[in-house]
Amino acid sequence: MIFVGERINTGFKDIKQAVLERDPKPLREWAIRQTEAGADYLDVNLGAVSTKAEDMCWMVETVQAAVDTPISIDTNKAAILAEAIRLCDKPPLINSTTGAEEKSEQFFSIAVEYDASIIGLAMDESGSPQNADMRVEKAGMLLAKAMEYGIPMERLYLDPILMPLKYRQEQASDFLDAVRQFQMFSDPPPHVICGLSNVSSGTIYRKLINRTFLVMAVANGMDAVICDVMDTDLINAARSAELIMNKAIYADSYTRT
Amino acid sequence: MIFVGERINTGFKDIKQAVLERDPKPLREWAIRQTEAGADYLDVNLGAVSTKAEDMCWMVETVQAAVDTPISIDTNKAAILAEAIRLCDKPPLINSTTGAEEKSEQFFSIAVEYDASIIGLAMDESGSPQNADMRVEKAGMLLAKAMEYGIPMERLYLDPILMPLKYRQEQASDFLDAVRQFQMFSDPPPHVICGLSNVSSGTIYRKLINRTFLVMAVANGMDAVICDVMDTDLINAARSAELIMNKAIYADSYTRT
Repeated sequence: MIFVGERINTGFKDIKQAVLERDPKPLREWAIRQTEAGADYLDVNLGAVSTKAEDMCWMVETVQAAVDTPISIDTNKAAILAEAIRLCDKPPLINSTTGAEEKSEQFFSIAVEYDASIIGLAMDESGSPQNADMRVEKAGMLLAKAMEYGIPMERLYLDPILMPLKYRQEQASDFLDAVRQFQMFSDPPPHVICGLSNVSSGTIYRKLINRTFLVMAVANGMDAVICDVMDTDLINAARSAELIMNKAIYADSYTRT
Repeated sequence: MIFVGERINTGFKDIKQAVLERDPKPLREWAIRQTEAGADYLDVNLGAVSTKAEDMCWMVETVQAAVDTPISIDTNKAAILAEAIRLCDKPPLINSTTGAEEKSEQFFSIAVEYDASIIGLAMDESGSPQNADMRVEKAGMLLAKAMEYGIPMERLYLDPILMPLKYRQEQASDFLDAVRQFQMFSDPPPHVICGLSNVSSGTIYRKLINRTFLVMAVANGMDAVICDVMDTDLINAARSAELIMNKAIYADSYTRT
């Protein structure tokens, strides 16, 4: 399982304030905590706090000053991506492009130039997918485009788009169907990833729903996730699921305690 | 989800002693506790403590004196089944037959006579299945035989046979593959069930593995389970998984607290 730590995001109050005040401490702390928790990438998201590339660059540099963990550059703006990626010490994960013509051209070009990995959302100009088939169609087109650009399969992460269970209940099983169908695209299949916390939006038992959904997604072939890596129960559930799928060898000490 | 409470089994010390001493109290207590926890059936298993039908009959009557919950008669001996089933106030679940010629004839005949539901193990004279395909083959043959006897699909529970993760790791994903393939047998599909605790045999974090495996099996279509119904985390994980599969409608209060 490839874990992307979600916490350095201005959607969280402490990070928003830190960016506004250029206070590196909260970013440093979350970079270290998530790295110690085993994050493979640290997502860095400027959100709506600023549209200036220099603010994203400051975030990236602040995180890299604290840890060696690769960055997941979370932006939908090619201009911000182009600036921030130049600063990355290790090939980052670009989060994310859609299949829309102009956008995917810009994002894939940058991914190729910097040997980066990239998340492709299963959607395009026509909006969000409303069932499993649309997810498969959009992801398939995006995958074909990534191959045209010469992005190797192991650097492509398909995101089937996860919606809140409480408000779009039928979309959860559609998502799982799509993950399973993505496994047929190639051998080995592309990575599959999602932003896990979306699924529990508005619910009371958020951790339970996040954890249960992640296990079900692993059962269908998902192998990467953007999530709260500090949630030990979540990590242990994911590790157990990987044992059950025979993707890691059983040892009594397989959990994080 | 159909929950079968596993606890009235002489594999547990208190039940063994109770049967040997004909002490109804532990059976009554577990009958009440499991019923309050939401068990749909109470498994009653005499195990190796005795080969006398009268002991099984005593167990069944003791449980029925305490609760109205239907019984799951857990025996592989047709003679014991034939005696115990006569005492059942409600149509029981017979646990279980294999596909072996003589045995399935005896067990299916009894199931038909008493309008009982019945668990069919995906195995026959040739022994346990070693991969997904063998599970599908054996279960399919058993299903065909059940139909010949006139057992309606909604009273047939197929058991793909769950083995310990620690010792037969690759069998866990084979089991899940088989559950998925069982969904193609008919529309609506037959029930799929297993004895959950087997999967965690010999491991340290048994509840974690039981829970994770159950969620993955639900993701593949399993809809019944023989388990520890007192394990609230397990029940809540199963309920969450059913919401995600869109088999129950979301309500904020969907968990057992």
